[in-house]
Amino acid sequence: MQTSLILANVGKHIDLQADEAAFFASLLKEKQVKRKQLLLRENEICLHSAFVNTGCLRGYTVDKNGYEHILQFAPAGWWIADMYSMLTRQPGELFIDALEDTEVLLLHVDDRDLLMREIPKFERFFRIILENSLVSFRQRLLENLGLPALERYLLFCKRYPMLIDHLPQKQIAAYIGVTPEFLSKMRAEMRAKNRR
Amino acid sequence: MQTSLILANVGKHIDLQADEAAFFASLLKEKQVKRKQLLLRENEICLHSAFVNTGCLRGYTVDKNGYEHILQFAPAGWWIADMYSMLTRQPGELFIDALEDTEVLLLHVDDRDLLMREIPKFERFFRIILENSLVSFRQRLLENLGLPALERYLLFCKRYPMLIDHLPQKQIAAYIGVTPEFLSKMRAEMRAKNRR
Repeated sequence: MQTSLILANVGKHIDLQADEAAFFASLLKEKQVKRKQLLLRENEICLHSAFVNTGCLRGYTVDKNGYEHILQFAPAGWWIADMYSMLTRQPGELFIDALEDTEVLLLHVDDRDLLMREIPKFERFFRIILENSLVSFRQRLLENLGLPALERYLLFCKRYPMLIDHLPQKQIAAYIGVTPEFLSKMRAEMRAKNRR
Repeated sequence: MQTSLILANVGKHIDLQADEAAFFASLLKEKQVKRKQLLLRENEICLHSAFVNTGCLRGYTVDKNGYEHILQFAPAGWWIADMYSMLTRQPGELFIDALEDTEVLLLHVDDRDLLMREIPKFERFFRIILENSLVSFRQRLLENLGLPALERYLLFCKRYPMLIDHLPQKQIAAYIGVTPEFLSKMRAEMRAKNRR
Protein backbone atom coordinates (compact mmCIF):
# COMPACT_ATOMS: atom_id res chain seq x y z
CA MET A 1 0.00 0.00 0.00
CA GLN A 2 1.35 3.44 -1.05
CA THR A 3 1.32 5.71 2.00
CA SER A 4 4.04 8.20 1.10
CA LEU A 5 1.62 10.83 -0.28
CA ILE A 6 -0.79 10.66 2.66
CA LEU A 7 2.06 10.76 5.20
CA ALA A 8 3.48 13.82 3.43
CA ASN A 9 -0.02 15.38 3.55
CA VAL A 10 -0.25 14.77 7.31
CA GLY A 11 3.38 15.81 7.81
CA LYS A 12 2.63 19.26 6.41
CA HIS A 13 0.63 20.00 9.58
CA ILE A 14 1.81 17.69 12.40
CA ASP A 15 4.97 15.73 13.21
CA LEU A 16 4.47 11.99 13.59
CA GLN A 17 6.79 9.52 15.31
CA ALA A 18 7.45 6.29 13.40
CA ASP A 19 5.08 4.25 15.60
CA GLU A 20 2.33 6.88 15.23
CA ALA A 21 2.72 6.85 11.44
CA ALA A 22 2.55 3.04 11.49
CA PHE A 23 -0.62 3.09 13.60
CA PHE A 24 -2.23 5.63 11.27
CA ALA A 25 -1.27 3.58 8.19
CA SER A 26 -2.69 0.43 9.82
CA LEU A 27 -6.15 2.07 9.82
CA LEU A 28 -6.15 2.80 6.08
CA LYS A 29 -7.60 0.54 3.39
CA GLU A 30 -6.53 0.82 -0.22
CA LYS A 31 -9.21 0.73 -2.89
CA GLN A 32 -9.14 0.95 -6.70
CA VAL A 33 -12.00 2.87 -8.30
CA LYS A 34 -12.36 2.41 -12.06
CA ARG A 35 -13.22 5.36 -14.31
CA LYS A 36 -16.96 6.20 -14.01
CA GLN A 37 -17.35 3.80 -11.06
CA LEU A 38 -19.16 5.15 -7.98
CA LEU A 39 -17.43 5.23 -4.61
CA LEU A 40 -20.54 6.63 -2.87
CA ARG A 41 -24.11 7.13 -4.00
CA GLU A 42 -27.05 9.20 -2.79
CA ASN A 43 -28.97 7.76 0.17
CA GLU A 44 -25.98 5.80 1.41
CA ILE A 45 -24.42 6.61 4.76
CA CYS A 46 -20.88 7.86 4.11
CA LEU A 47 -18.65 5.86 6.43
CA HIS A 48 -15.22 6.76 5.01
CA SER A 49 -13.04 9.74 4.28
CA ALA A 50 -11.21 9.03 1.02
CA PHE A 51 -7.68 10.30 0.31
CA VAL A 52 -6.75 10.24 -3.38
CA ASN A 53 -3.39 8.57 -4.10
CA THR A 54 -3.60 8.71 -7.91
CA GLY A 55 -6.38 9.71 -10.33
CA CYS A 56 -9.27 12.06 -9.64
CA LEU A 57 -12.63 11.81 -7.87
CA ARG A 58 -15.65 14.03 -8.26
CA GLY A 59 -18.38 14.80 -5.68
CA TYR A 60 -21.76 15.84 -7.07
CA THR A 61 -25.49 15.82 -6.45
CA VAL A 62 -28.30 15.13 -8.90
CA ASP A 63 -31.38 17.35 -8.64
CA LYS A 64 -35.01 16.41 -9.23
CA ASN A 65 -34.69 17.15 -12.93
CA GLY A 66 -31.71 14.81 -13.25
CA TYR A 67 -29.25 17.70 -13.51
CA GLU A 68 -25.78 17.16 -11.96
CA HIS A 69 -24.23 19.80 -9.68
CA ILE A 70 -20.54 19.35 -8.99
CA LEU A 71 -19.51 20.20 -5.47
CA GLN A 72 -15.85 19.30 -5.57
CA PHE A 73 -13.08 17.62 -7.53
CA ALA A 74 -10.47 15.64 -5.60
CA PRO A 75 -7.22 15.10 -7.53
CA ALA A 76 -4.20 13.27 -6.02
CA GLY A 77 -3.36 14.51 -2.53
CA TRP A 78 -6.92 15.68 -1.70
CA TRP A 79 -9.52 14.33 0.74
CA ILE A 80 -13.19 13.85 -0.05
CA ALA A 81 -16.25 12.64 1.91
CA ASP A 82 -19.91 13.45 2.41
CA MET A 83 -19.19 15.27 5.65
CA TYR A 84 -22.88 15.84 6.40
CA SER A 85 -23.67 12.13 6.17
CA MET A 86 -20.50 11.10 8.01
CA LEU A 87 -21.14 13.41 10.96
CA THR A 88 -24.85 12.76 11.33
CA ARG A 89 -24.73 9.07 10.27
CA GLN A 90 -27.72 9.88 8.09
CA PRO A 91 -28.11 8.93 4.42
CA GLY A 92 -26.43 11.62 2.31
CA GLU A 93 -27.17 13.26 -1.02
CA LEU A 94 -23.66 13.16 -2.47
CA PHE A 95 -22.47 10.91 -5.27
CA ILE A 96 -18.71 10.37 -5.53
CA ASP A 97 -17.34 8.83 -8.72
CA ALA A 98 -13.99 8.55 -10.50
CA LEU A 99 -13.19 10.69 -13.54
CA GLU A 100 -10.31 8.31 -14.35
CA ASP A 101 -8.93 5.11 -12.81
CA THR A 102 -8.23 6.17 -9.25
CA GLU A 103 -6.53 4.74 -6.18
CA VAL A 104 -7.82 5.87 -2.80
CA LEU A 105 -6.96 5.22 0.82
CA LEU A 106 -10.09 4.92 2.97
CA LEU A 107 -10.29 5.91 6.63
CA HIS A 108 -13.43 4.65 8.39
CA VAL A 109 -15.22 7.26 10.52
CA ASP A 110 -14.86 5.06 13.63
CA ASP A 111 -11.13 4.70 12.94
CA ARG A 112 -10.91 8.46 12.47
CA ASP A 113 -12.41 8.86 15.96
CA LEU A 114 -10.08 6.17 17.33
CA LEU A 115 -7.10 7.88 15.71
CA MET A 116 -7.94 11.22 17.37
CA ARG A 117 -8.41 9.52 20.74
CA GLU A 118 -5.13 7.57 20.50
CA ILE A 119 -3.03 10.33 18.91
CA PRO A 120 -4.64 13.64 19.91
CA LYS A 121 -2.47 15.70 17.58
CA PHE A 122 -4.62 14.30 14.75
CA GLU A 123 -7.33 16.64 16.12
CA ARG A 124 -4.99 19.40 15.03
CA PHE A 125 -4.47 17.85 11.59
CA PHE A 126 -8.21 17.49 10.91
CA ARG A 127 -8.90 20.93 12.37
CA ILE A 128 -6.44 22.47 9.89
CA ILE A 129 -7.68 20.61 6.81
CA LEU A 130 -11.26 21.50 7.79
CA GLU A 131 -10.29 25.16 7.99
CA ASN A 132 -8.87 24.94 4.49
CA SER A 133 -12.00 23.21 3.15
CA LEU A 134 -14.22 25.73 4.84
CA VAL A 135 -12.36 28.60 3.22
CA SER A 136 -12.60 26.99 -0.17
CA PHE A 137 -16.34 26.21 0.10
CA ARG A 138 -16.96 29.71 1.36
CA GLN A 139 -15.08 31.24 -1.56
CA ARG A 140 -17.01 29.11 -4.00
CA LEU A 141 -20.31 30.14 -2.40
CA LEU A 142 -19.36 33.82 -2.66
CA GLU A 143 -18.32 33.31 -6.28
CA ASN A 144 -21.65 31.72 -7.10
CA LEU A 145 -23.53 34.50 -5.36
CA GLY A 146 -21.63 37.38 -6.79
CA LEU A 147 -19.40 36.70 -9.79
CA PRO A 148 -20.14 36.44 -13.50
CA ALA A 149 -19.32 33.18 -15.28
CA LEU A 150 -16.02 34.36 -16.79
CA GLU A 151 -14.59 35.23 -13.37
CA ARG A 152 -15.83 31.94 -11.94
CA TYR A 153 -13.94 30.21 -14.74
CA LEU A 154 -10.73 32.16 -14.07
CA LEU A 155 -10.98 31.25 -10.37
CA PHE A 156 -11.50 27.62 -11.31
CA CYS A 157 -8.26 27.76 -13.33
CA LYS A 158 -6.45 29.22 -10.34
CA ARG A 159 -7.87 26.68 -7.87
CA TYR A 160 -7.43 23.57 -10.00
CA PRO A 161 -4.51 24.37 -12.37
CA MET A 162 -3.76 20.65 -12.67
CA LEU A 163 -7.25 19.94 -13.97
CA ILE A 164 -7.86 22.56 -16.70
CA ASP A 165 -6.42 20.61 -19.62
CA HIS A 166 -7.15 17.31 -17.99
CA LEU A 167 -10.90 17.28 -17.32
CA PRO A 168 -13.64 16.97 -19.93
CA GLN A 169 -15.01 20.46 -20.73
CA LYS A 170 -18.44 19.20 -19.72
CA GLN A 171 -17.24 18.66 -16.14
CA ILE A 172 -15.68 22.11 -15.87
CA ALA A 173 -18.86 23.69 -17.27
CA ALA A 174 -20.99 21.81 -14.72
CA TYR A 175 -18.71 22.98 -11.91
CA ILE A 176 -18.88 26.65 -12.81
CA GLY A 177 -22.57 26.41 -13.62
CA VAL A 178 -22.72 27.17 -17.35
CA THR A 179 -23.50 25.09 -20.43
CA PRO A 180 -20.55 23.45 -22.23
CA GLU A 181 -21.38 25.67 -25.25
CA PHE A 182 -21.09 28.82 -23.14
CA LEU A 183 -17.77 27.66 -21.65
CA SER A 184 -16.43 26.97 -25.11
CA LYS A 185 -17.49 30.47 -26.28
CA MET A 186 -15.78 32.04 -23.24
CA ARG A 187 -12.58 30.14 -23.92
CA ALA A 188 -12.59 31.16 -27.58
CA GLU A 189 -13.04 34.81 -26.58
CA MET A 190 -10.17 34.53 -24.08
CA ARG A 191 -7.89 33.04 -26.72
CA ALA A 192 -8.82 35.76 -29.23
CA LYS A 193 -8.11 38.42 -26.57
CA ASN A 194 -4.73 36.86 -25.73
CA ARG A 195 -3.71 36.90 -29.39
CA ARG A 196 -4.43 40.62 -29.74
CA MET B 1 -18.39 39.92 31.30
CA GLN B 2 -21.11 37.36 30.47
CA THR B 3 -19.39 34.05 29.73
CA SER B 4 -22.17 31.58 30.57
CA LEU B 5 -23.36 31.20 26.95
CA ILE B 6 -19.88 30.72 25.48
CA LEU B 7 -18.92 28.23 28.22
CA ALA B 8 -22.13 26.29 27.51
CA ASN B 9 -21.23 26.35 23.81
CA VAL B 10 -17.75 24.95 24.52
CA GLY B 11 -19.15 22.52 27.08
CA LYS B 12 -21.33 20.89 24.43
CA HIS B 13 -18.18 19.43 22.89
CA ILE B 14 -15.41 19.28 25.50
CA ASP B 15 -15.23 19.15 29.31
CA LEU B 16 -13.31 22.01 30.90
CA GLN B 17 -11.84 22.11 34.41
CA ALA B 18 -12.49 25.34 36.33
CA ASP B 19 -8.93 26.62 35.78
CA GLU B 20 -9.16 25.86 32.03
CA ALA B 21 -12.48 27.71 31.78
CA ALA B 22 -10.93 30.65 33.63
CA PHE B 23 -7.92 30.71 31.29
CA PHE B 24 -10.21 30.61 28.26
CA ALA B 25 -12.38 33.42 29.65
CA SER B 26 -9.27 35.50 30.37
CA LEU B 27 -8.52 35.55 26.62
CA LEU B 28 -11.93 36.95 25.64
CA LYS B 29 -12.76 40.62 25.17
CA GLU B 30 -16.30 41.91 25.36
CA LYS B 31 -17.45 44.40 22.74
CA GLN B 32 -20.73 46.21 22.09
CA VAL B 33 -21.67 46.67 18.43
CA LYS B 34 -24.49 49.11 17.78
CA ARG B 35 -27.16 48.34 15.17
CA LYS B 36 -25.75 48.97 11.64
CA GLN B 37 -22.21 49.40 13.04
CA LEU B 38 -19.44 47.45 11.30
CA LEU B 39 -17.31 44.96 13.25
CA LEU B 40 -15.17 44.18 10.19
CA ARG B 41 -14.90 45.74 6.77
CA GLU B 42 -13.53 44.62 3.42
CA ASN B 43 -9.73 44.89 3.00
CA GLU B 44 -9.13 44.62 6.73
CA ILE B 45 -7.24 41.65 8.16
CA CYS B 46 -9.65 39.70 10.35
CA LEU B 47 -7.85 39.17 13.64
CA HIS B 48 -10.73 37.92 15.80
CA SER B 49 -13.35 35.22 15.97
CA ALA B 50 -16.53 36.76 17.34
CA PHE B 51 -18.97 34.83 19.52
CA VAL B 52 -22.41 36.47 19.75
CA ASN B 53 -23.72 36.85 23.31
CA THR B 54 -26.87 38.82 22.47
CA GLY B 55 -28.17 40.37 19.23
CA CYS B 56 -27.36 39.31 15.69
CA LEU B 57 -24.44 39.85 13.31
CA ARG B 58 -24.41 39.49 9.54
CA GLY B 59 -21.47 38.56 7.27
CA TYR B 60 -21.69 39.79 3.67
CA THR B 61 -19.71 40.89 0.66
CA VAL B 62 -20.35 43.75 -1.72
CA ASP B 63 -19.77 43.10 -5.41
CA LYS B 64 -18.47 45.50 -8.06
CA ASN B 65 -21.98 46.73 -8.76
CA GLY B 66 -22.54 47.57 -5.10
CA TYR B 67 -24.83 44.58 -4.59
CA GLU B 68 -24.70 42.88 -1.16
CA HIS B 69 -24.41 39.08 -0.88
CA ILE B 70 -25.12 37.68 2.56
CA LEU B 71 -22.90 34.78 3.54
CA GLN B 72 -24.11 34.14 7.05
CA PHE B 73 -26.19 35.40 9.94
CA ALA B 74 -24.86 34.92 13.46
CA PRO B 75 -27.56 35.10 16.16
CA ALA B 76 -26.78 34.56 19.87
CA GLY B 77 -24.67 31.47 20.46
CA TRP B 78 -23.01 31.49 17.02
CA TRP B 79 -19.42 32.22 15.94
CA ILE B 80 -18.46 34.41 12.98
CA ALA B 81 -15.15 35.45 11.38
CA ASP B 82 -13.58 35.96 7.98
CA MET B 83 -11.85 32.59 8.15
CA TYR B 84 -9.98 33.16 4.88
CA SER B 85 -8.46 36.40 6.13
CA MET B 86 -7.77 35.03 9.61
CA LEU B 87 -5.93 31.96 8.33
CA THR B 88 -3.92 33.67 5.62
CA ARG B 89 -3.44 36.98 7.47
CA GLN B 90 -4.39 38.65 4.20
CA PRO B 91 -6.98 41.44 3.78
CA GLY B 92 -10.42 39.85 3.45
CA GLU B 93 -13.52 40.64 1.46
CA LEU B 94 -16.08 40.16 4.22
CA PHE B 95 -18.04 42.88 5.95
CA ILE B 96 -19.53 42.01 9.34
CA ASP B 97 -22.17 44.33 10.78
CA ALA B 98 -24.87 44.22 13.44
CA LEU B 99 -28.56 43.88 12.54
CA GLU B 100 -29.47 45.03 16.06
CA ASP B 101 -27.51 46.13 19.13
CA THR B 102 -25.20 43.20 19.70
CA GLU B 103 -22.75 42.05 22.37
CA VAL B 104 -19.86 39.89 21.24
CA LEU B 105 -16.92 38.17 22.87
CA LEU B 106 -13.78 38.45 20.74
CA LEU B 107 -11.01 35.85 20.63
CA HIS B 108 -7.80 37.08 18.95
CA VAL B 109 -6.31 34.66 16.43
CA ASP B 110 -3.01 34.57 18.38
CA ASP B 111 -4.93 33.79 21.58
CA ARG B 112 -6.84 31.08 19.73
CA ASP B 113 -3.47 29.52 18.81
CA LEU B 114 -2.23 29.96 22.38
CA LEU B 115 -5.40 28.38 23.73
CA MET B 116 -4.96 25.29 21.54
CA ARG B 117 -1.30 25.02 22.57
CA GLU B 118 -2.05 25.37 26.30
CA ILE B 119 -5.26 23.31 26.37
CA PRO B 120 -5.05 20.87 23.44
CA LYS B 121 -8.64 19.71 23.80
CA PHE B 122 -9.61 23.05 22.27
CA GLU B 123 -8.26 21.58 19.03
CA ARG B 124 -11.16 19.16 19.35
CA PHE B 125 -13.63 21.95 20.05
CA PHE B 126 -12.61 23.99 17.01
CA ARG B 127 -12.43 20.85 14.87
CA ILE B 128 -16.05 20.05 15.72
CA ILE B 129 -17.44 23.56 15.18
CA LEU B 130 -15.53 23.72 11.87
CA GLU B 131 -17.14 20.43 10.80
CA ASN B 132 -20.55 21.90 11.55
CA SER B 133 -19.78 25.11 9.64
CA LEU B 134 -18.43 23.14 6.73
CA VAL B 135 -21.62 21.09 6.52
CA SER B 136 -23.77 24.18 6.64
CA PHE B 137 -21.75 26.05 3.95
CA ARG B 138 -21.79 22.95 1.80
CA GLN B 139 -25.55 22.61 2.10
CA ARG B 140 -26.01 26.23 1.23
CA LEU B 141 -23.76 25.88 -1.83
CA LEU B 142 -25.75 22.85 -3.01
CA GLU B 143 -28.99 24.74 -2.44
CA ASN B 144 -27.79 27.66 -4.53
CA LEU B 145 -26.61 25.33 -7.27
CA GLY B 146 -29.67 23.16 -7.43
CA LEU B 147 -32.81 24.41 -5.69
CA PRO B 148 -35.51 26.84 -6.77
CA ALA B 149 -36.09 29.96 -4.64
CA LEU B 150 -39.10 28.59 -2.76
CA GLU B 151 -37.15 25.60 -1.46
CA ARG B 152 -34.21 27.83 -0.56
CA TYR B 153 -36.65 29.93 1.48
CA LEU B 154 -38.10 26.87 3.26
CA LEU B 155 -34.58 25.72 4.12
CA PHE B 156 -33.78 29.18 5.43
CA CYS B 157 -36.81 28.92 7.75
CA LYS B 158 -35.57 25.53 8.96
CA ARG B 159 -31.99 26.72 9.50
CA TYR B 160 -32.76 30.05 11.16
CA PRO B 161 -36.22 29.59 12.80
CA MET B 162 -35.35 32.31 15.33
CA LEU B 163 -34.77 34.85 12.56
CA ILE B 164 -37.81 34.51 10.25
CA ASP B 165 -40.08 36.99 11.99
CA HIS B 166 -37.17 38.92 13.37
CA LEU B 167 -35.11 40.00 10.37
CA PRO B 168 -36.08 42.65 7.82
CA GLN B 169 -37.53 40.91 4.71
CA LYS B 170 -34.83 42.64 2.66
CA GLN B 171 -32.12 40.71 4.53
CA ILE B 172 -33.84 37.36 4.07
CA ALA B 173 -34.34 38.08 0.36
CA ALA B 174 -30.64 38.96 -0.03
CA TYR B 175 -29.66 35.74 1.72
CA ILE B 176 -31.73 33.47 -0.49
CA GLY B 177 -30.85 35.46 -3.59
CA VAL B 178 -34.18 36.93 -4.71
CA THR B 179 -35.64 40.45 -4.76
CA PRO B 180 -37.71 41.52 -1.72
CA GLU B 181 -40.74 41.71 -4.07
CA PHE B 182 -40.29 38.10 -5.14
CA LEU B 183 -39.94 36.94 -1.51
CA SER B 184 -43.10 38.81 -0.59
CA LYS B 185 -44.95 37.13 -3.50
CA MET B 186 -43.72 33.68 -2.41
CA ARG B 187 -44.84 34.31 1.17
CA ALA B 188 -48.29 35.47 0.03
CA GLU B 189 -48.65 32.31 -2.09
CA MET B 190 -47.61 30.15 0.85
CA ARG B 191 -50.15 31.84 3.11
CA ALA B 192 -52.91 31.40 0.49
CA LYS B 193 -51.97 27.73 0.14
CA ASN B 194 -52.03 27.21 3.91
CA ARG B 195 -55.51 28.74 4.14
CA ARG B 196 -56.93 26.34 1.53
